[in-house]
Amino acid sequence: MKEVTLGIDIGGTFTKFGFIERGGEAIFDGSITTTGHKDIASYQKTLADEIKRSFKKFEKEYKLVGVGIGAPNGNYYKGTIEFAPNLDWKEVVPFVDMFKKHFDLPMALTNDANAAAIGEMIYGSAVGMKDFVVITLGTGLGSGLVVNGEVVYGHDGFAGEVGHVQVYENGRMCGCGNRGCFETYSSASGLRRTVFELLCNETLPSRLRDVSFNDMTAKMIADAAKEGDEIAIKAFEITAHILGMKLADTVAHTSPETIFLFGGLTNAGDILFKPTRESFENNLLKVFKNKIKIVPSGLQETNAAVLGASALAWKELEK
Amino acid sequence: MKEVTLGIDIGGTFTKFGFIERGGEAIFDGSITTTGHKDIASYQKTLADEIKRSFKKFEKEYKLVGVGIGAPNGNYYKGTIEFAPNLDWKEVVPFVDMFKKHFDLPMALTNDANAAAIGEMIYGSAVGMKDFVVITLGTGLGSGLVVNGEVVYGHDGFAGEVGHVQVYENGRMCGCGNRGCFETYSSASGLRRTVFELLCNETLPSRLRDVSFNDMTAKMIADAAKEGDEIAIKAFEITAHILGMKLADTVAHTSPETIFLFGGLTNAGDILFKPTRESFENNLLKVFKNKIKIVPSGLQETNAAVLGASALAWKELEK
Repeated sequence: MKEVTLGIDIGGTFTKFGFIERGGEAIFDGSITTTGHKDIASYQKTLADEIKRSFKKFEKEYKLVGVGIGAPNGNYYKGTIEFAPNLDWKEVVPFVDMFKKHFDLPMALTNDANAAAIGEMIYGSAVGMKDFVVITLGTGLGSGLVVNGEVVYGHDGFAGEVGHVQVYENGRMCGCGNRGCFETYSSASGLRRTVFELLCNETLPSRLRDVSFNDMTAKMIADAAKEGDEIAIKAFEITAHILGMKLADTVAHTSPETIFLFGGLTNAGDILFKPTRESFENNLLKVFKNKIKIVPSGLQETNAAVLGASALAWKELEK
Repeated sequence: MKEVTLGIDIGGTFTKFGFIERGGEAIFDGSITTTGHKDIASYQKTLADEIKRSFKKFEKEYKLVGVGIGAPNGNYYKGTIEFAPNLDWKEVVPFVDMFKKHFDLPMALTNDANAAAIGEMIYGSAVGMKDFVVITLGTGLGSGLVVNGEVVYGHDGFAGEVGHVQVYENGRMCGCGNRGCFETYSSASGLRRTVFELLCNETLPSRLRDVSFNDMTAKMIADAAKEGDEIAIKAFEITAHILGMKLADTVAHTSPETIFLFGGLTNAGDILFKPTRESFENNLLKVFKNKIKIVPSGLQETNAAVLGASALAWKELEK
């Protein structure tokens, strides 16, 4: 019988899952809504039922051998989700302990960026790499640091919060309560904030002057930039400048071989990567110059979070 | 027969060495000058001769089992010293390969801050700790990051250069060639630069107005602060403010249990530690608040660098 792991990605709106073979092939993808459940127990029951129902047609050919879960503010050591700002469950949720009632299998949980890093290591472009970093550029900026072949979880299981290093003292307000955090500049939402700063400070014409803050998306800005909109181009330059600058600081910590960029914002391609690499090289310490690659993730965007979560399960089974 | 390792600390002026027991007891300390030798080979010959001569009187009772070397810009993987700005040998020196001609023993080399971290782990206050950081506050700011019980060397052996993360874009010129580096603010020399900034910007009287830049030491500033000199007190506050702020960024990377501060500047005591801890807590992400200690190193200053180097040798022998 062939083996698969179950990967679960818990997002603010949807919870996605998939059954994934050791090589990274998904034999099935499904989802339920994350919101609208009475409590965490009933959410887990709905999720487990849907997974079991979906697995029925595979159970003659496949054996489910482990469960990996990616969740915001996920704690690897404790299997908990703690104070996640975008989920209905605000306190410390003992997710793994509770979910084991439904699946009596090896089970591990971590945050989404760490899961992405493990996905990169098991199925993606980091196979065989010992020291690398994965940066997820979505609404926020997530990070997974890999040192000596292992994800850095730190003393308490919460390491890898690079999105919250400080870029500018007393800078932009961040969802975490501090000011000036990296993710308020270099992320999809940071890019949008920068557009609005430029619309305020510059008098250049821009099609983005017709779009409200709430309506504006990173894709809209990328499209405008590709068509030569100067405000959009400048916004990408600033976003990339800060991204390269602070990634150089991360290199000063762990000296990775490669930095993988992942998530919606990377679809902008060279508009993002080129100025990021330039600023990165300008800010690196001499010993690190011209030897660290910044490249797109080797995982497919569509189900990468589920892949990452399933990779965590494979990684645990290796232990 | 009892066992000792040989610890060697290569500084810009002196090279110190010692024979150290497993518990951290030094049975002998010696030194030679680092400068004034014809070349690296003749320097190594002089050093080896002095070590062998010194060991003569111990050889009936003790066996030398390994050699650890701490050196600026030391590369652990390759055993090289590379482009060290303060040494006579400017290029890539294959130190370990060459020194093995004199001592046919297990031998390892790393930079001084990594050696200090291993010293803390083997003999100091970090015994049994898995995740911690050592920051050396001397002329510059060095760092040794320990993750999961191992020093982070990174892909190329140069990880842990936290002294060169950027505090302010286009800030103070650093010896590394970049601007705004952490060590240009939070170190003995950074403290002095801050005093001069304050002497320029403020009109407060200060005894430090009678001292030239070259004559001013960190100890002088600490003494003035203890006696109520407002410029000196403010300089410590700024140094500590930036120290706490950027150490919070390091926590966002590796989430350590404890940060050990080490080196001359820490002799200032509460004048440094109190505002550092305050700024640190203010800048931490919520999940890290009120759980990470900032404490003085548990190693004795006098021979800590030699202890650290010898600890590296013990650590290698455990492998």
